[in-house]
Amino acid sequence: MKELGIGLLGFGTVGAGVIEGLRRNGDLIATRLGARLAVRAIADLDLERDRGVAVERALLTTDAAGVVARPDIDIVVELIGGTGAARSLTTAALARGKPVVTANKSLLAKHGAELFALAAEQRADLAFGASVGGGIPVIRALRDGLMANRIESIYGILNGTCNYILTRMETEGLTFKRALNEAQEKGYAEADPSLDIDGHDTAHKAVILASLAHGFPVPLEQVSVEGIRTISDQDMRYAQDLGYRIKLLAIVKSAEAGLDVRVHPTLLSRQHMLASVSGVFNAVMIKGDLTGQSLLYGRGAGREPTAATVIADLADVARNLLSGARRVPALPGAGAARPLVPLSDIAARYYLRLSLLDRPGVLARVTAILGRHGVSLASILQKETKAGDYVPVVIVTHETPERAMQAAAEEIDRLDAVNRKTVRLRIED
Amino acid sequence: MKELGIGLLGFGTVGAGVIEGLRRNGDLIATRLGARLAVRAIADLDLERDRGVAVERALLTTDAAGVVARPDIDIVVELIGGTGAARSLTTAALARGKPVVTANKSLLAKHGAELFALAAEQRADLAFGASVGGGIPVIRALRDGLMANRIESIYGILNGTCNYILTRMETEGLTFKRALNEAQEKGYAEADPSLDIDGHDTAHKAVILASLAHGFPVPLEQVSVEGIRTISDQDMRYAQDLGYRIKLLAIVKSAEAGLDVRVHPTLLSRQHMLASVSGVFNAVMIKGDLTGQSLLYGRGAGREPTAATVIADLADVARNLLSGARRVPALPGAGAARPLVPLSDIAARYYLRLSLLDRPGVLARVTAILGRHGVSLASILQKETKAGDYVPVVIVTHETPERAMQAAAEEIDRLDAVNRKTVRLRIED
Repeated sequence: MKELGIGLLGFGTVGAGVIEGLRRNGDLIATRLGARLAVRAIADLDLERDRGVAVERALLTTDAAGVVARPDIDIVVELIGGTGAARSLTTAALARGKPVVTANKSLLAKHGAELFALAAEQRADLAFGASVGGGIPVIRALRDGLMANRIESIYGILNGTCNYILTRMETEGLTFKRALNEAQEKGYAEADPSLDIDGHDTAHKAVILASLAHGFPVPLEQVSVEGIRTISDQDMRYAQDLGYRIKLLAIVKSAEAGLDVRVHPTLLSRQHMLASVSGVFNAVMIKGDLTGQSLLYGRGAGREPTAATVIADLADVARNLLSGARRVPALPGAGAARPLVPLSDIAARYYLRLSLLDRPGVLARVTAILGRHGVSLASILQKETKAGDYVPVVIVTHETPERAMQAAAEEIDRLDAVNRKTVRLRIED
Repeated sequence: MKELGIGLLGFGTVGAGVIEGLRRNGDLIATRLGARLAVRAIADLDLERDRGVAVERALLTTDAAGVVARPDIDIVVELIGGTGAARSLTTAALARGKPVVTANKSLLAKHGAELFALAAEQRADLAFGASVGGGIPVIRALRDGLMANRIESIYGILNGTCNYILTRMETEGLTFKRALNEAQEKGYAEADPSLDIDGHDTAHKAVILASLAHGFPVPLEQVSVEGIRTISDQDMRYAQDLGYRIKLLAIVKSAEAGLDVRVHPTLLSRQHMLASVSGVFNAVMIKGDLTGQSLLYGRGAGREPTAATVIADLADVARNLLSGARRVPALPGAGAARPLVPLSDIAARYYLRLSLLDRPGVLARVTAILGRHGVSLASILQKETKAGDYVPVVIVTHETPERAMQAAAEEIDRLDAVNRKTVRLRIED
């Protein structure tokens, strides 16, 4: 049976999962593929740490560039992460015409245009199935299964850390801080959690999905990103009272004015399919003009699910190498660039939580301001409290232009009777 | 741009959808594929009927065999259905080394072994993405995205007609007969609905998924099939009272004794992800040893979703033709055949609805029989009724071997105090 030489760059969690997966299911994978995937080198700066999987000492090296250059390495797997060494090594491999499999979302979100151009020029595959959704075949679905469709919208829960925190806040009534601490204790969140909880990781994935679905490199810096730090347990309870759940969503919508790509916490009706995605699970809803709505759900991170997708990518690339075909980078770059819709130009329904002095006439002044800005109200929720205090008042609006909502909220926040910045969350139905 | 000649056999609903989809998104598809898919002939016995899509008269012919033979036809799309002409024309195309795209589940379930062997021998692709799940990329997920996994289980809601009927019975309290009539009026069920409601369509799809996941041709005649004709509105209500929904499931489980493949109505806890799949939608839960649980959900039938998957298959096959590669029939045939687990060897939790004479001591006799067969009870539900009548008693069991359950039910049904055959449904948690 033919054998292809694999060079693994980065021996962390996913790297160990790839070794373990190839070991456990190697024969099955070889039968399905018609060739054997042989890991011939593993590069990492730390060769001592125990990864829970035994490898021959001779496979290990600190010289990643040497692995890329070795003639017996047919495919390079980049699992280093970040945009430093990962970028230069990926570039080096592609420049040699060697296909690369990567799970690196920040690399692709920031330098995808340059890397896909190089891959196309060198006729070398750049496979990135594991960069979004871990074990969920969302990249494949967009590239292959849904390829006959114009993609109208994508809604994704793409960060397990955020979804875990939000789920615990909802089901256990935890504060954000306590839920974050718990996620860190369980190993679901990093010591420095900002990449996840401030929405950047989700934004990287949104950019990759948007670029793939629409065929041009979507500029990350034009994507509006809000994280979940500002979500309070109070908002969580009000959302529940109103029949909603709060989820951090990646949104990619095709609009007349351009492509609307954004990341923000969103109130979803409990009936919405994404509302029932809980804990560390991920899910993506994709609407195509022919296929209609479809949903993919599964483990969006973790050693084994992500490794399974890396191996599936290896098999794709290997098939192409064996047959001389090339197909993986077919989609990004297949469409004309479109402008991104600025956040100020969108419209949405809003959840507002105001902190108002509990005196006659205050709510009337607030609603007058909303009316003047053309914000129409769907419901108001004010629970009984002791008089004299500032009380929380929750307002749900009908669809309102972001610009008007922003202006109204700023005017409200300037009132003497308001003692805290109004919390403002978007609603998707 | 390169062009590939497509011959369409069967100009029904999906055929018209393929023409329409290629017309609407043809440029986009060509850009993504790097080649143009040109329909050069459409064969059907009826050339007069209006399909709601205009085609040049010159494309139409009644001579399907002639289309297969034409040298300018590179790929044959079989949308005739059934196992007569569809089988001989598919065979003829493959025998000429021409790749075939088919949506024909009964053809593959009954003659897949023979057709995939011919395809392999001729090195011609046989693509069947649209045979299961319509617009849901479940075939692709098993073949590509999950290829590194041993597939442990597949649970699918794969027949939109049945799911529509069950959903209407549940939400509107309709009888089976009324819900079926409604489905027929809406065009969701055929005039002769038995292929759908007796579970055969679902069984065909189960066989295709099982064969693909486990790499050997699973014999359809060994698959146990129960449909939904026997589900009463009464069972629907009791299931709801107990916290369950009733769904027709295709089940493929890998067990030590072999492969457990079956189709039957099943009680699913309302928390189960498949329980919330309603109406004509389809969904499949797949558990792989590495990826864990994942779920795919979407439109499982209908003109446009199915056509989108046929076109995606055409693109797959076209890419292979253009590069000289071949990959579509890689999986079926990649594994060693395993015995199927006979239904009598499985174990499950059961829902039993008995019709008992409302006299002292009757229930005690029933529970004594259950106890003697080792059937342990989880709950009993008996609602107050007028004395003297036969009353419905619902029993939920703990896990019980099918054989014991069968024997106990037969013994119960022989009691004088029982006036109707005990209804017996399996529960999945």
